[in-house]
Amino acid sequence: MTRTIEISRLFDPSSIAVVGASTTEGKIGYEAMENVRDFEGPVYPVNPSREGEIFGESFVGSIGAIDDDVDLALLCVPASVVPDTIEECGEAGVGAAVIYAGGFAEAGEDGRELQRRITASATEHGIALLGPNTSGFVVPDEGLYASFATGVEDVPAGGLAVIAQSGGIAHSVAFRAVNERRGLSAMVGLGNRANVGFEEAIDYFDSDPSTSAIALHLEGTDDARSLLETCYDAETPVFAYKVGTADVSDFAESHTGALTGDHALYEAGFAQYGVPTVESTSQLLDAGHLAATAPLPRGTNVGIVTAQAGPGIVIADRLKQAGVSLPSLSEETTERVTEILPGITYAANPVDTGRPMPAFGDVVRAVAEDTNVDAVVVYELHEAALGFPVDALDGLAEETGKPVLFATAAPHSQMEADRTALEEIGVSVFESPEDVADAMVALAEYARVSASAAPAGVSTR
Amino acid sequence: MTRTIEISRLFDPSSIAVVGASTTEGKIGYEAMENVRDFEGPVYPVNPSREGEIFGESFVGSIGAIDDDVDLALLCVPASVVPDTIEECGEAGVGAAVIYAGGFAEAGEDGRELQRRITASATEHGIALLGPNTSGFVVPDEGLYASFATGVEDVPAGGLAVIAQSGGIAHSVAFRAVNERRGLSAMVGLGNRANVGFEEAIDYFDSDPSTSAIALHLEGTDDARSLLETCYDAETPVFAYKVGTADVSDFAESHTGALTGDHALYEAGFAQYGVPTVESTSQLLDAGHLAATAPLPRGTNVGIVTAQAGPGIVIADRLKQAGVSLPSLSEETTERVTEILPGITYAANPVDTGRPMPAFGDVVRAVAEDTNVDAVVVYELHEAALGFPVDALDGLAEETGKPVLFATAAPHSQMEADRTALEEIGVSVFESPEDVADAMVALAEYARVSASAAPAGVSTR
Repeated sequence: MTRTIEISRLFDPSSIAVVGASTTEGKIGYEAMENVRDFEGPVYPVNPSREGEIFGESFVGSIGAIDDDVDLALLCVPASVVPDTIEECGEAGVGAAVIYAGGFAEAGEDGRELQRRITASATEHGIALLGPNTSGFVVPDEGLYASFATGVEDVPAGGLAVIAQSGGIAHSVAFRAVNERRGLSAMVGLGNRANVGFEEAIDYFDSDPSTSAIALHLEGTDDARSLLETCYDAETPVFAYKVGTADVSDFAESHTGALTGDHALYEAGFAQYGVPTVESTSQLLDAGHLAATAPLPRGTNVGIVTAQAGPGIVIADRLKQAGVSLPSLSEETTERVTEILPGITYAANPVDTGRPMPAFGDVVRAVAEDTNVDAVVVYELHEAALGFPVDALDGLAEETGKPVLFATAAPHSQMEADRTALEEIGVSVFESPEDVADAMVALAEYARVSASAAPAGVSTR
Repeated sequence: MTRTIEISRLFDPSSIAVVGASTTEGKIGYEAMENVRDFEGPVYPVNPSREGEIFGESFVGSIGAIDDDVDLALLCVPASVVPDTIEECGEAGVGAAVIYAGGFAEAGEDGRELQRRITASATEHGIALLGPNTSGFVVPDEGLYASFATGVEDVPAGGLAVIAQSGGIAHSVAFRAVNERRGLSAMVGLGNRANVGFEEAIDYFDSDPSTSAIALHLEGTDDARSLLETCYDAETPVFAYKVGTADVSDFAESHTGALTGDHALYEAGFAQYGVPTVESTSQLLDAGHLAATAPLPRGTNVGIVTAQAGPGIVIADRLKQAGVSLPSLSEETTERVTEILPGITYAANPVDTGRPMPAFGDVVRAVAEDTNVDAVVVYELHEAALGFPVDALDGLAEETGKPVLFATAAPHSQMEADRTALEEIGVSVFESPEDVADAMVALAEYARVSASAAPAGVSTR
């Protein structure tokens, strides 16, 4: 009898076993053990040839010897040992396993056969299998770091779930999230997707109350239709980064056993099913973070306010190139702006104040309140004597229902405190004119494709 | 009699006067004074209505009252006062002036007339005029910060001169250089280019022994031919960021009084004259930094070595999209790689080692030494127990004459020391697969256009 797979035993476990736990620093079995050492539930290091303790936990000889129901097993063992380990897990009633090892579907016919065997075995036992060939996942607000990479415990908790086909991309995005202080509800590297694939992960995090947006990285899948329908059915906004425009399919197949397929078809498909696509890991993180923390724009009309014309021109140029419109401001707004700043440099859209000044935030507010505008992009070099217009921007996004994106530049040490103050009132900060423009393009694309989304054929919605 | 303009009195002055020096924090006359307070030559604060001292220097009533030859005057006064101030500077033998104020060629016919007047006056007196409408310049290795922005004293000294039409872009790039630890020989915001334009700045820094590469930002110019010929004649590699693909000319003209012109014509012109063009401020800084610190590639064949397949696929995809070739590795290299790592995941190009390991640097070295390859791009997530392959990469670029670009991800605090070690052996570090790919694309573009550069008509070379 096949048991039902419960994805919650993977992403929200009560207990963890580390199979192949090691005392040798640098080995996966050590690094994985180190990363789960502060997990709030019981953690069992499993290794038949070790005695004593690691990180204060006593080694256990086998999964079967653990006197407890284990939800999640982290398998730090080579591919050849995985089939027997999965069987043992099944017999012990383990609910989920992460397989870090490679050597499966990405590694020729023998590997594909091996993956078919372990998947059948796991599915029969009701084990949710993440991987093989992944570096794992983290759920920061549960203190759950089921990855062997160092530094994952620094990932800040937040509302964005990053679901990546590649564990390397998942970690690359998560570490960028650390350095950019963008919070994640989860980071998942799917790897070879034995029986936990895009659909299972998206479904799970769509229902997760901590997740407000999903960022998806994808090289390819054999069932694009199923993925697209899952995205369409999700209540949570999804942004997708489809890699593989050029012909890199040989290498990609060697990676997660996936064919990269036709890029243009994927992009069109995503758009049709209401999913905007992005062009880089940074744009994926930035757009996802905005969707998780700010109102989504209701249309594609953007107002720009800049204290320096040059960066404002870069932003305007990049938005226009991507088909985003910069509407004229209403007469009322122009009057308001001219009243705030008599003799202003340029009061059309972009509004150019010529320099930062105390009234800069009031100008941003005036533009955000213009009914012609669905979102506001702001650029202002940081000046130590002025700081950022925190008071003027506090609550603005909530009051107007529009996202406000703030880009700046300064030595990090100089703007640290002011940047934190902006972030604390929910304003996302960007450090180049192109990055803020690209994030805005993704939000505008969301407004465009979600308004017209209509799946082909019968929808399950 | 018209005197000769000496640009060296602008960029390499022996003495500085700050006209309109102020004791009010936040005013340009205060910030400019603060930024030059540590200049090694004499600094004179000039203000007829102030007495006493500022930053330890006594106020002087007028430029004429200074009992010294002043090379550089920083004019922190409104546009209306500039013409008289230029006259006073001329009479006092001042060699150069920076005009921070706007209200000149960017501000309608009256402004254009005002700029014509001050330019004629300055040129007659032999004064090099930077601006008007600029936030200034810095030359870090001289301790010269002729800008009113806060934080410029953090810009690290190095070999790249950033010459930007917009002071805002100049500062945005310079602050990114601070945060990315990329050294600059100079950062210049040209503004309205009264009599110091692209040509004068490029010529000067081309002859500057501290400058090994030039990064150019441009919105538009009335004499593109002259700019292109100057770039062609320069011994120093030049990378250009031409903004204004979409129709933003109204706004751009309001900025520095320049027409943005036809983007495609500019790009083709730059390519013809041997100047690669880039698509963002970060790519401009990164490519310029590489050109200043690493060998330039002799061709467009790139080898990729990655410890995580996902980011490797992103890099390969982005390079191929941009027309960069990923050649097959020689049989000898493949054998060497397979010897270093028996059972390696993927030993073609990209080489995928599957995980970081102590021999990772040896694999990079093998690929760099392959005669099929002109440059190497490396991706490796940082692991605390391994660090970066500093020993294996030390001297590699010099020995092979090829640039080695290293991309990674980790919390900054975790990789700080290892990153510094890599940078100290001259390896540039990137923090996303797209950023390293974009920098490589610009270098490959340099190899392509510099090989075939041939200016139209008669060259001055």
